Amino acid sequence: MRAVVMYAPGEVRVDETERPTIVEPTDAVIKLAATCICGSDLWPYRGADDVHHQPMGHEYVGVVEEVGADVVEIRVGDFVVGTFFSSDNTCEICRAGYQTHCVHRGPGAVPGAQAEYARIPHADGTLVATPAMPDHDLVPSLLAASDVLGTGWFAAVAAEVGPGKTVAVVGDGAVGLLGVLAAKQLGAERIIAMSRHADRQSLAREFGATDIVEERGDAGVERIKELTDGLGAHSTIEAVGTQESMMQAIRATRAGGHVGYVGVSHEVVLPGEELFFSGVHLHGGPAPVRRFLPELIKLIWDRAIDPGKVFDLTLPLEQAAEGYRAMDERRATKVLLTV
Amino acid sequence: MRAVVMYAPGEVRVDETERPTIVEPTDAVIKLAATCICGSDLWPYRGADDVHHQPMGHEYVGVVEEVGADVVEIRVGDFVVGTFFSSDNTCEICRAGYQTHCVHRGPGAVPGAQAEYARIPHADGTLVATPAMPDHDLVPSLLAASDVLGTGWFAAVAAEVGPGKTVAVVGDGAVGLLGVLAAKQLGAERIIAMSRHADRQSLAREFGATDIVEERGDAGVERIKELTDGLGAHSTIEAVGTQESMMQAIRATRAGGHVGYVGVSHEVVLPGEELFFSGVHLHGGPAPVRRFLPELIKLIWDRAIDPGKVFDLTLPLEQAAEGYRAMDERRATKVLLTV
Repeated sequence: MRAVVMYAPGEVRVDETERPTIVEPTDAVIKLAATCICGSDLWPYRGADDVHHQPMGHEYVGVVEEVGADVVEIRVGDFVVGTFFSSDNTCEICRAGYQTHCVHRGPGAVPGAQAEYARIPHADGTLVATPAMPDHDLVPSLLAASDVLGTGWFAAVAAEVGPGKTVAVVGDGAVGLLGVLAAKQLGAERIIAMSRHADRQSLAREFGATDIVEERGDAGVERIKELTDGLGAHSTIEAVGTQESMMQAIRATRAGGHVGYVGVSHEVVLPGEELFFSGVHLHGGPAPVRRFLPELIKLIWDRAIDPGKVFDLTLPLEQAAEGYRAMDERRATKVLLTV
Repeated sequence: MRAVVMYAPGEVRVDETERPTIVEPTDAVIKLAATCICGSDLWPYRGADDVHHQPMGHEYVGVVEEVGADVVEIRVGDFVVGTFFSSDNTCEICRAGYQTHCVHRGPGAVPGAQAEYARIPHADGTLVATPAMPDHDLVPSLLAASDVLGTGWFAAVAAEVGPGKTVAVVGDGAVGLLGVLAAKQLGAERIIAMSRHADRQSLAREFGATDIVEERGDAGVERIKELTDGLGAHSTIEAVGTQESMMQAIRATRAGGHVGYVGVSHEVVLPGEELFFSGVHLHGGPAPVRRFLPELIKLIWDRAIDPGKVFDLTLPLEQAAEGYRAMDERRATKVLLTV
């Protein structure tokens, strides 16, 4: 089968590889309908994370081709949405809603989903079937649910977004934009998107942003304070993962407010004393998308939300290298790969 | 009047100083009934914070001697418990329960409460009157409510302690011990106190600890994991404020669990990536004791709790220097000064 492999930073190829098969009795093998490139795939692409001949991709939707002997809920022929960490969804941590930290999850994310087929461990706990085969136009939104929507949604929940609240969103990538969408769905009164790109500002407004702040760093914080009677946001979504974005998020939040952070923290160090005196709540990490999948699939199925709009470039799997380049050069926010 | 002044690290004297008077119409002047030495007073005493001829003390109970023209709720003759930051208790931040971050609070803690008299700004918002003049034996507990009990209580609330939960408490000073008491009152199922001092272990058990862990650092974390099916505590109270204690608290907590931290963070830096992948909630800072004071005073008045037991040394104000030495040398957990 064809699969995307990153040989080294900046070097992405589509190789002919062996089609995965059932290994554990709880596995499923799915035939991908669509996959995509994640903002986090750019970390190794840019040399910020080690990479050596790595099968890429952890976002996927597709049709179940084969299941192991112990799989009882997911059936061959189901159209499924899966999450980037596998989880049994029955352990104590899963039941508390933190499936990304399942005590039986593997050592890392589901690998190799930028491919024709993928093996998914703990199929019953990791995959959620759609009510029927989806209309073609729903596929991008269902694919978004697999990671970026689920991650933006978790950030909003972690930031305790709710009715009457003012929400600031740091980061205008796919996750930040879908954090805006999540904040809107969760009833936020005011949503301030921090963005300096006209196309992303436009999508943020479409998703529910009421204000746009173009300033960054201290100036961005000042602007948020001005918009909130000097107090700061109730809830701030951090969707970048750099030192600057984390401090911007913490400083833009009022005492007693909540920061939900989902940008993978790279070389971030938080000054304890400033955090102490800020009085904010901090919660985040790899999003337990599985917790939200049933709800998100329903919203998409009912056409209440259209998160698939974050895909602004669609390419066949064969052109994955061009997809990576487009995202790296910020010519695209999020690239969908058809399989 | 007599007042405790720290001239320099390690140098504490009782001076004759000017008795405070009403400055702002929202002030009250109180005659102290008792005051005490805080663990945080040891930071400057040990040279970790700058200090130069500083009036000391921010924990106090006493009788109102005089009020400004705009004070309407607090009356002359009331016995009051106050908090270490003044707050108007009417601004948006106060109403959200974060009085320590009141938009009208002064630049620092209420100063100079280790004295015969103290001026308290925003008297109506900072002080809470007891139902009547308290019995003599209730005074230590009411004094504890002013800071250490309120701070331990906030840590437990920040750590989302509740029924069915396993709580770990890092730090066996007065705040940690009262964090144990708070966890018990808030319904925790299991309370693991981390302590290697027999007298403090004993008080921890009296306050509700079900388990004692003597190990520290990584070994302490391992022990907590062993006691919790490998998962870690649901809620961890951090009541020290060092790098080791913060990391111990974070690592002892399960994914999705909550760390409530109230030790003043000194030179603490939190590694972003580890925090990200830990999946814990982090909340803390200077405790908004005012939020809890009415409830705490009621519990003490009804003799449901006896937090005054943390005072294991009582000295007259004149012997403040000996009180500081006793706490510095860990001969005392918490020193009460009679006025």
